[in-house]
Amino acid sequence: MNTKTIDVCLTPDLLHQYDLDGKIAVIVDILRATSCMVSGLANGVKEIVPVSTLEECLALQKIGYLAAAEREGAKANGFDMGNSPFEYMEEKVKGQKVAVTTTNGTLALNKSLAAEQILVGAFLNIAALTEYLKTQTEDVIIVCAGWKGKFNLEDTLFAGALCYRLRDQFEFACDAPLAAEAMYLQAQNDIFGYMKNSSHAKRLAKLNVIKDIEFCSQESIYDVIPVLVGESLFPLEK
Amino acid sequence: MNTKTIDVCLTPDLLHQYDLDGKIAVIVDILRATSCMVSGLANGVKEIVPVSTLEECLALQKIGYLAAAEREGAKANGFDMGNSPFEYMEEKVKGQKVAVTTTNGTLALNKSLAAEQILVGAFLNIAALTEYLKTQTEDVIIVCAGWKGKFNLEDTLFAGALCYRLRDQFEFACDAPLAAEAMYLQAQNDIFGYMKNSSHAKRLAKLNVIKDIEFCSQESIYDVIPVLVGESLFPLEK
Repeated sequence: MNTKTIDVCLTPDLLHQYDLDGKIAVIVDILRATSCMVSGLANGVKEIVPVSTLEECLALQKIGYLAAAEREGAKANGFDMGNSPFEYMEEKVKGQKVAVTTTNGTLALNKSLAAEQILVGAFLNIAALTEYLKTQTEDVIIVCAGWKGKFNLEDTLFAGALCYRLRDQFEFACDAPLAAEAMYLQAQNDIFGYMKNSSHAKRLAKLNVIKDIEFCSQESIYDVIPVLVGESLFPLEK
Repeated sequence: MNTKTIDVCLTPDLLHQYDLDGKIAVIVDILRATSCMVSGLANGVKEIVPVSTLEECLALQKIGYLAAAEREGAKANGFDMGNSPFEYMEEKVKGQKVAVTTTNGTLALNKSLAAEQILVGAFLNIAALTEYLKTQTEDVIIVCAGWKGKFNLEDTLFAGALCYRLRDQFEFACDAPLAAEAMYLQAQNDIFGYMKNSSHAKRLAKLNVIKDIEFCSQESIYDVIPVLVGESLFPLEK
């Protein structure tokens, strides 16, 4: 009998139904915020500060942060970076601090602050995340960023992939983990193909970022797990 | 190119994200409210009035309605019927008017009144519902009743089954139909087995209603489609 539970919040609009107190929250915005955060910290970014508004982001730019901002899928005017994982791997970001605001991912993170620990998940670091969570005693809740409060496919697929990997160590807390897992099992042999069919991928395809989607659908290419300490994300020390 | 769209609202807590104006809403609460409504009208119940509160239900009982009420999965005190489809097939209900209130299903229905037409769906009438919707010009939204505002498995499975059957005539409006369809495709060979794993089925199993779950997982045994006319559900005239 597992005493730890794992749950999935399908969109931030449903977060009021969940008690995050004492739990580990895994924030996921596969296309592309959390994939960027993992890629950045894996490639030498020093720390990442997720903020909710463009104004907060620009205020941090003035004190030396690189400012990254995405709205409606595209880079916002006046910012150093947009929301492509490839931008987080460029030479200019190494050793730097990045302030970032996105439509969904940073919002989901900032709505989850009641959790005991906040981690950032993506397909890119799913193996490392799985191994870490297995060793912890806390209950886990995966918070899907969705799209403007609506359910989305790719974040739920990731949630399903993580639930599937943790099902021997955790009890599913309600039906959302079961459903996400079923979706993942249906899609697992062609994650990229499934993701290309999602509404958000179709929005992004118009912006010519199919390369980003392909990159974000890769499993376990990085070991880093971003963890929120104070107001910044750093690599978790394991 | 399909000009009609089909969408899925995964729980009534997300209904604020959807515009129901001009659309056909299909209300679904597989375990057990909408399965009961279909069973009742298919077995000679004259009309069914869904109400939100126990008090409204008792007020209608005083003027001659049979009063059906479920709270927390069990029949509420002082009522003629609970929420088992078998109660809706008894001799005493034939030709009668039934007032009904349930934890989730009647609430979902009453929150969907902005729709152009309100239909009631269940696995029990899915073929009839599919054929009817194919012939209509309106967009369709499937409203899953969930459990106290939370996502549930069995209503989403039904939504996926209906989306799958209508995918040649309708365009999927967002990711929820895609996800529900993937779940259904994963579960389709063992709907009853999947449903038995749902949180709600586990709650119901404690109440000894496994027979109800088995009954509600049957596909297309009735042709009747309940439609809301005024404040009552009647069989749709096709």
